[in-house]
Amino acid sequence: MAAEAASSSPPAAITCRAAVAWGPGQPLVMEEVEVAPPGPLEIRVKVVSTSVCRSDVTAWQSKAQPDLFPRIFGHEASGVVESVGEGVTEFQVGDHVLTVFIGECKSCKHCISGKSNMCQKLGLERKGVMHSDQKTRFSVKGKPVYRYCAVSSFSEYTVVHSGCAVKVGLTVPMDRVCLLSCGVSAGLGAAWNVADVSEGSSVVIFGLGTVGLSVIKRMTDGGADYSFECVGDTGVVSTALQSCSGGWGVTVTLGVPKAQPEVSAHYAFLLSGRTLKGSLFGGWRPKSDLPSLVDKYADKEIQVDGLVTHDIPFGDINRALELMLENKCLRCVIHMSQ
Amino acid sequence: MAAEAASSSPPAAITCRAAVAWGPGQPLVMEEVEVAPPGPLEIRVKVVSTSVCRSDVTAWQSKAQPDLFPRIFGHEASGVVESVGEGVTEFQVGDHVLTVFIGECKSCKHCISGKSNMCQKLGLERKGVMHSDQKTRFSVKGKPVYRYCAVSSFSEYTVVHSGCAVKVGLTVPMDRVCLLSCGVSAGLGAAWNVADVSEGSSVVIFGLGTVGLSVIKRMTDGGADYSFECVGDTGVVSTALQSCSGGWGVTVTLGVPKAQPEVSAHYAFLLSGRTLKGSLFGGWRPKSDLPSLVDKYADKEIQVDGLVTHDIPFGDINRALELMLENKCLRCVIHMSQ
Repeated sequence: MAAEAASSSPPAAITCRAAVAWGPGQPLVMEEVEVAPPGPLEIRVKVVSTSVCRSDVTAWQSKAQPDLFPRIFGHEASGVVESVGEGVTEFQVGDHVLTVFIGECKSCKHCISGKSNMCQKLGLERKGVMHSDQKTRFSVKGKPVYRYCAVSSFSEYTVVHSGCAVKVGLTVPMDRVCLLSCGVSAGLGAAWNVADVSEGSSVVIFGLGTVGLSVIKRMTDGGADYSFECVGDTGVVSTALQSCSGGWGVTVTLGVPKAQPEVSAHYAFLLSGRTLKGSLFGGWRPKSDLPSLVDKYADKEIQVDGLVTHDIPFGDINRALELMLENKCLRCVIHMSQ
Repeated sequence: MAAEAASSSPPAAITCRAAVAWGPGQPLVMEEVEVAPPGPLEIRVKVVSTSVCRSDVTAWQSKAQPDLFPRIFGHEASGVVESVGEGVTEFQVGDHVLTVFIGECKSCKHCISGKSNMCQKLGLERKGVMHSDQKTRFSVKGKPVYRYCAVSSFSEYTVVHSGCAVKVGLTVPMDRVCLLSCGVSAGLGAAWNVADVSEGSSVVIFGLGTVGLSVIKRMTDGGADYSFECVGDTGVVSTALQSCSGGWGVTVTLGVPKAQPEVSAHYAFLLSGRTLKGSLFGGWRPKSDLPSLVDKYADKEIQVDGLVTHDIPFGDINRALELMLENKCLRCVIHMSQ
């Protein structure tokens, strides 16, 4: 296991432990996997901490993509750059990074617009492969293992596109800041970027998981100014829309539905001046915006630590999945070195 | 027929001509109707011009409210104040006015908010009566005749709440400015207020009636910045949402559906950063905002006249309904004195 290759020699494949899902809903199996060297513009990261997000569990349980097994899930992670691929100038070996499940190429129409995080090159990856060459970087005994959400952090090492990682300061606690990689940022962004919630606004939140709890809370009589659907239940969207005020109410949906993908609502709720919007990753542009959010965490302007209910050694990762399935946790942080 | 009662003596009932709908879709019948005097805070208006809006035709044809016949439709109108009820200080006999189908009381939570046109006292009236006492002001041979949308302008005289009328200058052409009473304002407002369309934005419009044509037009490659559903077909909303760009696209729905009232769309269109909003009367606060729109028309900053395809004498009003049913007109203006 080569922890840190010298940056002068081209990096070689690494063999390390990864928690592999062999089929939908099947307990993850700790396997020796081979992790290929990073390709052009890619970096290989030694994962330090990864928290388990509801969407990891949803995708793991889903029977919708049976061809994408075996697969390594996990996307909310922090780690250390172990090696860099050709053309990478932004990262150096030893840098601390957060992974991000949607990237930012900074050159496509969306990235240039400054108002979108829907990067056309590094957007949501659904096929379990790298954006660049549509291949994975993992294998078990020669058999390819699919990736998840451009990250696959349930592995001691993973390869990500350099556009899907953000550098963080060396003093930021790795085992907590990983929550900013997805859930907490999504919630804060939904409130700040997407809904533009202001002080004194009334807010209704559907789904008090980590994302929901990261959205501001206050109740008032009459319809709310803002409502947030964080459940991933399209049926709840209609209720959320109904719960906010005509004239100016804004409903933000940010859950990923497990079943029925159609959002439906009576037209009168819209015609009477309500707004329904959605957001992925809270509207944050991962590379442009995430560093300032990390700074806010470091400066104690935003709370993250309180959302961690369990610290779990990597070897016990299945317990984290169970806790989430049983709704007995907010965020479980997996410690890769334990 | 008392055209102008002296303001010192209390106004009496008026007998005049009105086009009465006796049943859903039945041709309007010109009847002698009695129009009661205006109640407290109400005004009686001698209608000069009324244009026919798609929603008049939709409501006339609908079998959903069979109890609300006989009924007098029409809501997009201009006229002259003939008499004023108790407590009215804003209007005087002889004032030129536009009627508005949603009012503004200026005292409820929504009116005070400054960001809503969903007045809680004078909002959309669906029962065919006055907001104040839940009664009509029309009768034919003693039989009550229901009202429509707080206005009922297919009558030589009508009574409206003073909160549902806006004063206009005496030199503004009455037979054209009536279009600002609903359709044109709805379209302009959807673009300016609700979507905040800026110069250079790409826009897709579904439903090029008067409302649709009043929305700015420009096409570009890729998804549009804004799309407008002006058809009143909830099925089109999904297409409209799809037609605009992820990341920042905004879809505004402003048509009133004739059938299926549920708006439905795949959640992924929202999650990828699109916004779906609705608006009634283009988000304009009728009393606060309409005067400035009339000024823009008077100053030739906005075009209205080109949307009038037919000028029709009141006696031929059924022809206007037919033209709209056959999609052979944009706006027909009914001239009440002809």
